[in-house]
Amino acid sequence: MKPVKVGLLGLGTVGGGTATVLSRNAEEIARRAGRGIVIDFAAALDTSHAAQLGLSGVRLSNNAMDVVEDPDIEIVVELIGGYNLAKDLVLQAINNGKHVVTANKALIALHGNEIFAAAQKQGVIVAFEAAVAGGIPVIKAVREGLAANRIEWLAGIINGTSNFILTEMRDKGRSFADVLAEAQVLGYAEANPTFDVEGIDAAHKLTILSSIAFGVPLQFNETYVEGISKITPEDVSYAADLGYRIKLLGIARRTEQGIEQRVHPTLIPRKQLIASVDGVMNCVMVQGDAVGSTLYYGRGAGAEPTGSAVVADIIDVVRAMTSDPNNRVPHLAFQASTLADTPILPITEVETAFYLRMRAVDKPGVLADVTRILGDRSISIEAFLQKEPAKAGSEVDIIMLTQRVRQGNMDEAIAAIEQLDSICGAVTRLRVETLN
Amino acid sequence: MKPVKVGLLGLGTVGGGTATVLSRNAEEIARRAGRGIVIDFAAALDTSHAAQLGLSGVRLSNNAMDVVEDPDIEIVVELIGGYNLAKDLVLQAINNGKHVVTANKALIALHGNEIFAAAQKQGVIVAFEAAVAGGIPVIKAVREGLAANRIEWLAGIINGTSNFILTEMRDKGRSFADVLAEAQVLGYAEANPTFDVEGIDAAHKLTILSSIAFGVPLQFNETYVEGISKITPEDVSYAADLGYRIKLLGIARRTEQGIEQRVHPTLIPRKQLIASVDGVMNCVMVQGDAVGSTLYYGRGAGAEPTGSAVVADIIDVVRAMTSDPNNRVPHLAFQASTLADTPILPITEVETAFYLRMRAVDKPGVLADVTRILGDRSISIEAFLQKEPAKAGSEVDIIMLTQRVRQGNMDEAIAAIEQLDSICGAVTRLRVETLN
Repeated sequence: MKPVKVGLLGLGTVGGGTATVLSRNAEEIARRAGRGIVIDFAAALDTSHAAQLGLSGVRLSNNAMDVVEDPDIEIVVELIGGYNLAKDLVLQAINNGKHVVTANKALIALHGNEIFAAAQKQGVIVAFEAAVAGGIPVIKAVREGLAANRIEWLAGIINGTSNFILTEMRDKGRSFADVLAEAQVLGYAEANPTFDVEGIDAAHKLTILSSIAFGVPLQFNETYVEGISKITPEDVSYAADLGYRIKLLGIARRTEQGIEQRVHPTLIPRKQLIASVDGVMNCVMVQGDAVGSTLYYGRGAGAEPTGSAVVADIIDVVRAMTSDPNNRVPHLAFQASTLADTPILPITEVETAFYLRMRAVDKPGVLADVTRILGDRSISIEAFLQKEPAKAGSEVDIIMLTQRVRQGNMDEAIAAIEQLDSICGAVTRLRVETLN
Repeated sequence: MKPVKVGLLGLGTVGGGTATVLSRNAEEIARRAGRGIVIDFAAALDTSHAAQLGLSGVRLSNNAMDVVEDPDIEIVVELIGGYNLAKDLVLQAINNGKHVVTANKALIALHGNEIFAAAQKQGVIVAFEAAVAGGIPVIKAVREGLAANRIEWLAGIINGTSNFILTEMRDKGRSFADVLAEAQVLGYAEANPTFDVEGIDAAHKLTILSSIAFGVPLQFNETYVEGISKITPEDVSYAADLGYRIKLLGIARRTEQGIEQRVHPTLIPRKQLIASVDGVMNCVMVQGDAVGSTLYYGRGAGAEPTGSAVVADIIDVVRAMTSDPNNRVPHLAFQASTLADTPILPITEVETAFYLRMRAVDKPGVLADVTRILGDRSISIEAFLQKEPAKAGSEVDIIMLTQRVRQGNMDEAIAAIEQLDSICGAVTRLRVETLN
């Protein structure tokens, strides 16, 4: 059988990794796929390093649209990133009847509904395993491996940069700003780290996971996002004293009222396997009604780990391209016509346990005031810790773990606590999940 | 589209779990698969509990061959277990042009080559996700999700009974026999526990994993098997003192000399995520050249976790049954015509680090004798521990961790050590893997 001709858009980190993997493992890949897979045409603003990537003899262009419009190309691999140009290229490729593989989480999270509708109309596949958790085949696990289950919830460490920062903060007692600066030097964090540390990148990925878990359209704008930039070394240390670790989690959960879709720093029990996932590694837990708890772990970024997922998608497309378009794995796991309009819950309606930290004047009655405010709103305290500040003075840190409560209630309670004369400054509030 | 008609062979634990999942999640499954999946005919020696399993109105028989011969049945699900009858039924189903889903690891490990050849000839699919690690979609991860990789090695906790016993031994300092008896009462271990505790069940699964990782035929008879029945509480405790945990691992590794395929108790560093996989849970690590280290965790047995994998396979078959038979995922991950004849290494040729425990008369010169014997065979000592026995006396336990050495060398050294007058009884020898 003739090799499949792939067009590659982008020769940056992931584009380079994809080219390297396809060329180094060409023989093994052909033994699996039953035919060769070759990059026939590649486009990038700078193509001067193409030969280093094993792309000697491959047609090159500085205009990605040349690849998309090329009649010989059967699969377009979009590794440019960003929304606008990437979207135009992907839609045009679909329009030209080509299958698409992409690692672009922002594109899928924001424009996936439109892209998948166009692909279905044309009978082509848009594959996006690399968009979530890099090399971990978690899209495949949720869409296919757990297809027998009613998924109850999933929770993931899906941003390596944030996890690296939180790990360093815990291991070395360092501050967020200090570790971030080092991560930028090491290349683990971008010059503009907002997407990573403020949870936006994780929210893109979580939006995709939530859709394929629950069979709802992609709704990035409904995803609650809170980053790690306000986490202090004290919070990390107090959490440890209470038996918890702080991780930036993406959480999607099905409740009777609707779907929770949220990214925020979360205290999780140290004994949970996922609590030991450190550094830049990613990990996703998926809870199904039949299978129970499952977990997937690996590298969530990097040239070859992401290339691994891109190439696996290409192989899947090669296998499915001769099949009946109506009998393929649906883009969002459920047949497009059966996607549900289950509402995404506003964060104020979400119920979780909470970690509260407040600084109080060390005088009688403060604790009574705080517990009364919580008790009035039926918020029970699960654990309590009072710490002297590092330097001598008249203020103490009070730390509490509460039982589960609707966030709206908690917000009211915190506002009331902050009104107390004996409480200094704002109350720090983090969510707690047992993941059981 | 009309529902797909499935024939179910066996209504035991897994058969029951499969029927329950298919019936409870029928709507969600149809939303994914694009058509309904119904059990149309079920066979078991005892069918009296069929109604409880949601099988009211389903045709029932006490003769499994009735289902296999039924012209309406498109997919035969074999959940009887064992080799002989199961083999006849599966081959006959294939012969009748039916697709097959099975959870039978023994059948696949021993007769898979013959079964897959027959299936290829008939253009039908034999799916077996449930045969390895129950509900964890690890076959799918290795065959499809990591298809871009040259797999370097994999290592798994793939027998829940053994892992439960080792976990209890570690947590409570209990003996193997004691915990086994309890596990039998709890239903975690069979009345005849040999398959589980002597590593045979794990070896069936490892044989399958090795084939799909490296593209070689199934070779159960070449798999080295050593169980956990000789592990003592002392070994568990000494391993902990050295920073290790003892797990029954199935390990498959590609080396320049050939493929290692082995199941044995193994010391692994406590810091490895897989070292924290406790109780009846399963976990498989897979190392690919592009993706690096990945890990898959979940329930390896039980009615619904295994049913989850069986039903996922049924859905996969439903999707693939209309596709070109030559363009499907190959049974053993690689096209049948490209399977390699890479030799499986005899265990004496396998190189690992070792844990040695010996009881010695407490007199000068013993250690010098032992280290000389090791040194003569170029075996370096990595760590050393000397422990007084619990009761006073003139004998001491000597524990050593060695560097990596060919097992043949180690066997010779141990034989020589056991000849020493100052060494009492046999030397205990366990393998050590860092899994890096």
